Amino acid sequence: MRKPERVRAEGLPERVTIYEVGPRDGLQNESAIVDVAVKAEFIRRLADAGLTTIETTSFVHPKWVPQLADAAELLAALDLPTAVRAPVLVPNERGLDRALEAGVREIAIFASATETFAKKNLNSTVDDQFTMFAPTVRRALDEGLAVRGYVSMCYGDPWEGDVPAEQVVRVGARLVELGCHELSLGDTIGVATPGQVVRLISELGKAGVGVDKLAVHFHDTYGQALANTLTALREGVTTVDSSAGGLGGCPYAESATGNLATEDLVWQLDGLGIETGVDLDKLVPTSTWMATQLGKPSASRVVQALAG
Amino acid sequence: MRKPERVRAEGLPERVTIYEVGPRDGLQNESAIVDVAVKAEFIRRLADAGLTTIETTSFVHPKWVPQLADAAELLAALDLPTAVRAPVLVPNERGLDRALEAGVREIAIFASATETFAKKNLNSTVDDQFTMFAPTVRRALDEGLAVRGYVSMCYGDPWEGDVPAEQVVRVGARLVELGCHELSLGDTIGVATPGQVVRLISELGKAGVGVDKLAVHFHDTYGQALANTLTALREGVTTVDSSAGGLGGCPYAESATGNLATEDLVWQLDGLGIETGVDLDKLVPTSTWMATQLGKPSASRVVQALAG
Repeated sequence: MRKPERVRAEGLPERVTIYEVGPRDGLQNESAIVDVAVKAEFIRRLADAGLTTIETTSFVHPKWVPQLADAAELLAALDLPTAVRAPVLVPNERGLDRALEAGVREIAIFASATETFAKKNLNSTVDDQFTMFAPTVRRALDEGLAVRGYVSMCYGDPWEGDVPAEQVVRVGARLVELGCHELSLGDTIGVATPGQVVRLISELGKAGVGVDKLAVHFHDTYGQALANTLTALREGVTTVDSSAGGLGGCPYAESATGNLATEDLVWQLDGLGIETGVDLDKLVPTSTWMATQLGKPSASRVVQALAG
Repeated sequence: MRKPERVRAEGLPERVTIYEVGPRDGLQNESAIVDVAVKAEFIRRLADAGLTTIETTSFVHPKWVPQLADAAELLAALDLPTAVRAPVLVPNERGLDRALEAGVREIAIFASATETFAKKNLNSTVDDQFTMFAPTVRRALDEGLAVRGYVSMCYGDPWEGDVPAEQVVRVGARLVELGCHELSLGDTIGVATPGQVVRLISELGKAGVGVDKLAVHFHDTYGQALANTLTALREGVTTVDSSAGGLGGCPYAESATGNLATEDLVWQLDGLGIETGVDLDKLVPTSTWMATQLGKPSASRVVQALAG
C-alpha cells in the first residue's frame, strides 16, 4: 500500500494523540443501525490498527440516539488491551450510572458554546448546562474517572452565524473549572478557517487554558478540516479528534461529509514524520470493511484512493 | 449564502491569484464530453464570478484528448473581458500554430519530473522533453506570448514512488531557462504532505527560482490539497491552481477526486481575509449548474454544503 514520503517540517510536534471518534460520533450520525457484534469488531480492529484512544459509545437515552442504544451490551462485548483508553459519552447522572455499571474509566460530556444549540441539543441554556453537568462531573471525579469536555459550535453555528471566541472561552473555562482534564474544540458544522483557530487557541491560553489541555475536532463539511488541524498543530495542540473512514454525516448541512477522516489525518502526520502509532495498512481495510457494513462508500479520500 | 468569518492569520499573503483550471484540466479528465456552448457559458460564468485567470482549453491532438477537440471553436465563441487572462495548453509547435491562429496571448506547456511519466504522457524522456519544448517556447516568446511551465509528478509518481526534490528542481530550472515566466508545481497524484512542499520551494529558491515565479497545483486524491496549499502560502507562494467544483477525476488512482476545488480554496482564503476577487455567491451556482451538465455531483465540499 502506498505511503507518503516522510519529510519533517518546522514548528510541529513530534507526536500526536489521535482521539478516535468513529464508533461514537461517527456511527451516531449514520442513518444505518449497526449490529453490536459489528461495532465490537470495528473497535477491536481500530485498536489493532494502533489507535490508543477510542470513544466507543454513548449513554445518552436510546430514544434520542437509537444508533447507540446497545452501549452496555457493546462494552460487555469488548475486550480491549489495557493500554487502550475507551471513553464513553455521558449526558447526565443517569448516563453516568450506566457507564459506571459497565466499568468505564473515562467519560466525555458534551457542552454547547451557543444558546440555540444548547436549547436544541440539551433543552437548556449555555449557563444552565453547567448546573446539569456539575453533579455528573463531581461524581465521575469522585469515582476516579477522567472527564473530557466537548465544546460544540466553537466557530460557527447554523442558526447564530459566527460564534465569538470569548463565548467559547467562557464555556471552555467553566468546563475546566468543573474538572475536565481536556477540552475538545468542535467545529460542529465545519465552517472554520485557520485565523479563527489561531485566535481561539490564543484566547483560551489568555484565560488560563493551555494547549496541553486542548484537543481539536474539525468537521470536513467545507473541506477545511485538515488545514485547520495543521494550523492547530502549529499552535502546539497535540490531540486531534478524527473518525475512521470519515464516518458520520453532518446533521446541519446538506453535505454527506462529517468528521475529519482518521486516514486523511494519518497520511499527513505520517508524511510529516509525526508519530501516531497508527498503521494505515490495517486502518484502511478496517474502514473499507465498515463501509461495506454500512452499504455506502467511505468519505475518507485516503480510503477511496487506496482501497480496491 | 453562508460565508466564513474573516480572521487574518500571521505570515500569509494579502492577496492570492487563483489560476482556474476547471475548463481545461478539469474537463479533460471528466469522462463526459461537454458541448462547446456549455463550455463557453461555463467560462463566461467563471469570469463573471471574478476569476481573472482561466485556462480555457488545450491544443493537444484531439486523438489524445477528445474532450477538448473543440478548442478553436471554443475560443472563437468566447468574448471575455480584456482583464481576464485566458491561457491555453500547447503541447508542441503544431499546437502553438493553432493557438496563435485563435489569437491566444498566453500558453502553458506540460513537463514531467519523472522518466516514467515523460515516457507515458509525452513519449519522451525527461531530458528530451526540453528539445521538444524549446522551439515552441522560443516562437511563443517571439510572438509576445507568456509561457507557463507545468511540472507534473513533483512529489510522487504512480510508478516511481517518491520523487526527489532535486529532480523537480532540475526540470523547473530548465523551464525557467527556456523562458517560462511561471512554474506550476503539480502534485499530479495528490500524495504530497507539507514537509515536501516546504522542501521543494526551498530547493527551488536555492537554485534561483524564487517564490514569485511559483504556482502550486495540488490534487485532493488523498485529501491533502488545501493543507498543502496553506503551507505553500506560508512559504510565500501567491498563485494557486484550482478547479471550479473540483472538476477532473484522477486518472492514476481509484479516487473520483482530482483537483483542489476552487470553492474550498476560496472559503479558506475568504476566511483568512486574503483577497482573490472571487464571489462564492456566483461561483457555487456555476459549479452546481456544471455538475448538472455532467450528470454527477460536484466533488467540492463547499458546493455540496451550500448547494440546494
